[in-house]
Amino acid sequence: MILTFVGTAGSGKTTLTRAFGRYLEEKGYTVGYVNLDTGVKMLPYSPDVDVREDVTAWGLMEEGLGPNGAIVGSYDRLLPKVSEYAERILRLDSERDYVLMDTPGQMETFLFHDFGLRLMENLPDVLAVYLFSPEILRKPVDYCFVRFFGLTIDLRLGTTTVPALTKVDTTDLERHRKYLDDLDYLTARVKFEPSMGGLLAYRLCSVLPELSPPTRVLYLSALTGEGFEDLETVAYEHYCTCGDLT
Amino acid sequence: MILTFVGTAGSGKTTLTRAFGRYLEEKGYTVGYVNLDTGVKMLPYSPDVDVREDVTAWGLMEEGLGPNGAIVGSYDRLLPKVSEYAERILRLDSERDYVLMDTPGQMETFLFHDFGLRLMENLPDVLAVYLFSPEILRKPVDYCFVRFFGLTIDLRLGTTTVPALTKVDTTDLERHRKYLDDLDYLTARVKFEPSMGGLLAYRLCSVLPELSPPTRVLYLSALTGEGFEDLETVAYEHYCTCGDLT
Repeated sequence: MILTFVGTAGSGKTTLTRAFGRYLEEKGYTVGYVNLDTGVKMLPYSPDVDVREDVTAWGLMEEGLGPNGAIVGSYDRLLPKVSEYAERILRLDSERDYVLMDTPGQMETFLFHDFGLRLMENLPDVLAVYLFSPEILRKPVDYCFVRFFGLTIDLRLGTTTVPALTKVDTTDLERHRKYLDDLDYLTARVKFEPSMGGLLAYRLCSVLPELSPPTRVLYLSALTGEGFEDLETVAYEHYCTCGDLT
Repeated sequence: MILTFVGTAGSGKTTLTRAFGRYLEEKGYTVGYVNLDTGVKMLPYSPDVDVREDVTAWGLMEEGLGPNGAIVGSYDRLLPKVSEYAERILRLDSERDYVLMDTPGQMETFLFHDFGLRLMENLPDVLAVYLFSPEILRKPVDYCFVRFFGLTIDLRLGTTTVPALTKVDTTDLERHRKYLDDLDYLTARVKFEPSMGGLLAYRLCSVLPELSPPTRVLYLSALTGEGFEDLETVAYEHYCTCGDLT
């Protein structure tokens, strides 16, 4: 059972990989860890598969590249090995109950680079968890944005994607739930708070209910373990009922 | 007239800023250049406003951060100065015919960090040009993805966003145009090539015609100057007819 955490730098991918892994281990499951981030210096878990064995972003910076070029360049170097990585991850999956994949610090490296796309093509039935943190949710339209972003990840990776708000211990969860769980409420609020992009936002929000698979949004805290049972349930349902995540 | 180029690392933002700037200057216009990338080492143009005067990503790496942390951290440090940057850019705009803004190497730094969002809130009527390159277009569903990605940028930045394929001198342009200009054709093709995410892709593509503002897609080459006249026209129409980019 392979779960992959996708999200921008700072959304909590690495911390959650560690915390959810520990949660599963404490329940008696065996867990494999995969690190796909060439730019991370310290990990709070011991990866079984780690792209930094082949290349690191700071190694390429020592060769003279800037940080952006080094990040992209590191995945260029990994690309010829993508099948090998997929095989190692599948082997790990056959040996453990769960495999948790921690993706590149910069999400776009995973969504726009052939390394990320080809890896996912070679790993059938992965469940992607799209992590976003409360800081990016200021206005009603921001909730519409994250729901759409979840759909575009699904579209890009061709894999079932569950949106998950992280760091829920630090925020007013009820306010977020109202917008994220009730798309009709969200649409109504966007309608009454027209901004510069008002009409497009309203149009986009309005079609969300018909577009979104009936996927629940998860609410997670790596600190308190809140929502981990829900994540475990969603993962179980994904693998056992083939995609019905209501 | 402020144009901002948005796109992933490698999509051609910096090269296009230089090439389109030179095109405008050769037509007799005055052009201001803004660099918002803390991670770029060498620029092919002389920026009038440059965030690297305040902070660089590699400077933060020398303090011990990894490349991802350094990129995000550099915008944390710029955040208190965001109004000052907006004022400088507006002043530049009042002195020049055009201002071209080159955004962070990693697009998500601009779309997910408060620095990018607040800067755009403080700059009214900016036209965003979403750059994507031919490498990311392999399957019909990829065209659907880039069209949706353009919409989510529009939604996030609250600014009119024109999608633009770059590096058209390197690719089979006719194939790309068929998919990008004719959404009905695209939808039909996605329907007949069901992949893992087939149903969602088809649903998303189907609603594109009603969601997309009637924006033409631009086809640009920094090398040959192809499409520059179209870009100039679209910018002119944006400022003179308030958003009708058909």
